[in-house]
Amino acid sequence: MESQINQNIINFGAGPAKLPPPVLLQAQQELLSYSGFGISVLEMSHRSPEFTQIINKAEHLLRELLNIPDNYKVMFLQGGASGQFSGIALNLMGLKEDNCADYIVTGTWSAKAAKEAEKYGKVNIVHPKMDSYTKIPEPSSWNLNPAASYVYYCCNETVHGVEYNFMPETNGVTLVSDMSSNFLSRPVDVSKFGLIYAGAQKNVGCAGVTVVIVRDDLIGHAQKECPIILDYKVQAEMNSLYNTPPCFSIYIMCLVLEWIKKSGGAAAMEALNKRKSDLVYDVIDSSNGFYVCPVDEACRSRMNIPFRVGKKEGDDALEKEFLNGASKRGMISLKGHRSVGGIRASLYNAVTLQDTEALAKYMKEFLKEHQ
Amino acid sequence: MESQINQNIINFGAGPAKLPPPVLLQAQQELLSYSGFGISVLEMSHRSPEFTQIINKAEHLLRELLNIPDNYKVMFLQGGASGQFSGIALNLMGLKEDNCADYIVTGTWSAKAAKEAEKYGKVNIVHPKMDSYTKIPEPSSWNLNPAASYVYYCCNETVHGVEYNFMPETNGVTLVSDMSSNFLSRPVDVSKFGLIYAGAQKNVGCAGVTVVIVRDDLIGHAQKECPIILDYKVQAEMNSLYNTPPCFSIYIMCLVLEWIKKSGGAAAMEALNKRKSDLVYDVIDSSNGFYVCPVDEACRSRMNIPFRVGKKEGDDALEKEFLNGASKRGMISLKGHRSVGGIRASLYNAVTLQDTEALAKYMKEFLKEHQ
Repeated sequence: MESQINQNIINFGAGPAKLPPPVLLQAQQELLSYSGFGISVLEMSHRSPEFTQIINKAEHLLRELLNIPDNYKVMFLQGGASGQFSGIALNLMGLKEDNCADYIVTGTWSAKAAKEAEKYGKVNIVHPKMDSYTKIPEPSSWNLNPAASYVYYCCNETVHGVEYNFMPETNGVTLVSDMSSNFLSRPVDVSKFGLIYAGAQKNVGCAGVTVVIVRDDLIGHAQKECPIILDYKVQAEMNSLYNTPPCFSIYIMCLVLEWIKKSGGAAAMEALNKRKSDLVYDVIDSSNGFYVCPVDEACRSRMNIPFRVGKKEGDDALEKEFLNGASKRGMISLKGHRSVGGIRASLYNAVTLQDTEALAKYMKEFLKEHQ
Repeated sequence: MESQINQNIINFGAGPAKLPPPVLLQAQQELLSYSGFGISVLEMSHRSPEFTQIINKAEHLLRELLNIPDNYKVMFLQGGASGQFSGIALNLMGLKEDNCADYIVTGTWSAKAAKEAEKYGKVNIVHPKMDSYTKIPEPSSWNLNPAASYVYYCCNETVHGVEYNFMPETNGVTLVSDMSSNFLSRPVDVSKFGLIYAGAQKNVGCAGVTVVIVRDDLIGHAQKECPIILDYKVQAEMNSLYNTPPCFSIYIMCLVLEWIKKSGGAAAMEALNKRKSDLVYDVIDSSNGFYVCPVDEACRSRMNIPFRVGKKEGDDALEKEFLNGASKRGMISLKGHRSVGGIRASLYNAVTLQDTEALAKYMKEFLKEHQ
């Protein structure tokens, strides 16, 4: 049995993504018998005292790490962010009588969310469609509707590498945020949001579970066509146990949250993520245009860094060579999203400073060889 | 690290349930590095060649084990059976213009499915509501509607221990079956069904993934309010990869399917499950009413055996003593569902003949001590 983490692979994947080694080691260690109980988490009843302890601990850690106020419910749901594209509209569109919502569309994911929401109400995209997703339109230009039930945005666009470093001002309208790819990568003032959600498979776990944090007063307004598994009232009242939850994914999340806590919490993640992304952006910015990140400096993502090699629109042959060279050094999943091309380095919480230094070093060497 | 299965615990849980020891051992063995690839399945991109191999293999094994015809799609979805309660109605209710469906309600799960379907169309319960779920109403008494888009039934009611040993005759109307708790416990002629689905956490894996097998011509009829993650057309066209799938749960299912194949396939499971359930029913039937199974003999489940101890309606003190004694022998999760009370022994594929013999032996001893 392999019982040591392979140090020769560095996973820069956009998600599912690298997990902290101590999490994997613990999961392996207790895979056959959780906490001396004699059976695996994989075969444990979701109503057993042991699993109850796991899910409660996960919630407790989340509340502690994000300082979640008592008037917010925490749910662990299935269906991913794509499930919440529907879930949010189904549950919140009817908060006000106009049955409409504002969407700030700054990339693939917010665009998909807006499209899905159109099934359940009127969707107002607050600014003209952009030719390319490389910036956040100036907030003063947003056409916000005061009658909107909520304002929706994606805090970090995984595909395009666009991240909000400010909180949208909604003039009192409920704010909803998809934080799938920067959740717990920095502190966040939950009390300023109506709802925050995140798929676990980037910064806080593996695929299969999505965290939804929602303020009490927003619960109980679901449209009658809302599938019961997406109904916040049902799931909140049943502590995410209306139906069998994705037990193992919740367990892995619990381990990751423990690791984040031991590592210093959200503030420590923020400091680390800043250092990591600075390393890569510094190489890009000092490459005299050899590496090009198309994103406005003001909204460059600390999590996902898309860049082209050779020239602005990318040099196919060079990019292929770059990826091959990376692969030889054990660096995997650096290929850009198929809709964008080029390279993308994802630097989630579990990616270490050393991992990132290795990437920066390779980028410098590659630049030196080819400039 | 514990690297041996604990032989002192026997898990009779109703789901999530016992997994085959070789599956757990392999999952542990390759938890840090899947198949020499250097990273864990938990952190692997769902679009990587490695995961593609896993999901394709799972589908291939399913097709082989159940002899699934080519004109059926196989999907691996999130949201459990409860998600499919909505999914089926959202996708299939509109197959015919009356937008209605027939439901045969023989327990908690089919009752829940029927209730959820009412959100999306007209639901016809084909027989009067039963006082207790202990039998399947005589098929000749069913009030089937020829205009129904489909006829729905739950092939094995996990809570009440009612199992169909025949296929409902629908006179040509599409047949839909929830096989969550007896999937792959015996062969099934898929070609007779429009749709079969099953949560994995009973007979074929851990919680977090649901298999949906659906005939091609039933795809593409979703209501416009159908959340995209439940839309069969989208998921089938994208090979269950429209959104990030529950990768690890699919991987565990793949290992379980391999184990079923090595163990002789669905026919071998059927023979084993017959022997196992016979053991327990024989003790019940020869106990002179000390153990009472309330279910009609014609539809006794081979998977979930609910029974009372001491008398027909159960003797609370005796049942508590029975559970305590079982617990001392390492037999866990034998408590009946809270809505039914008493004892329930679930004998899914991974529960061995030896496990079941131990239970039967204990039941006989307990009977001897107390009769």
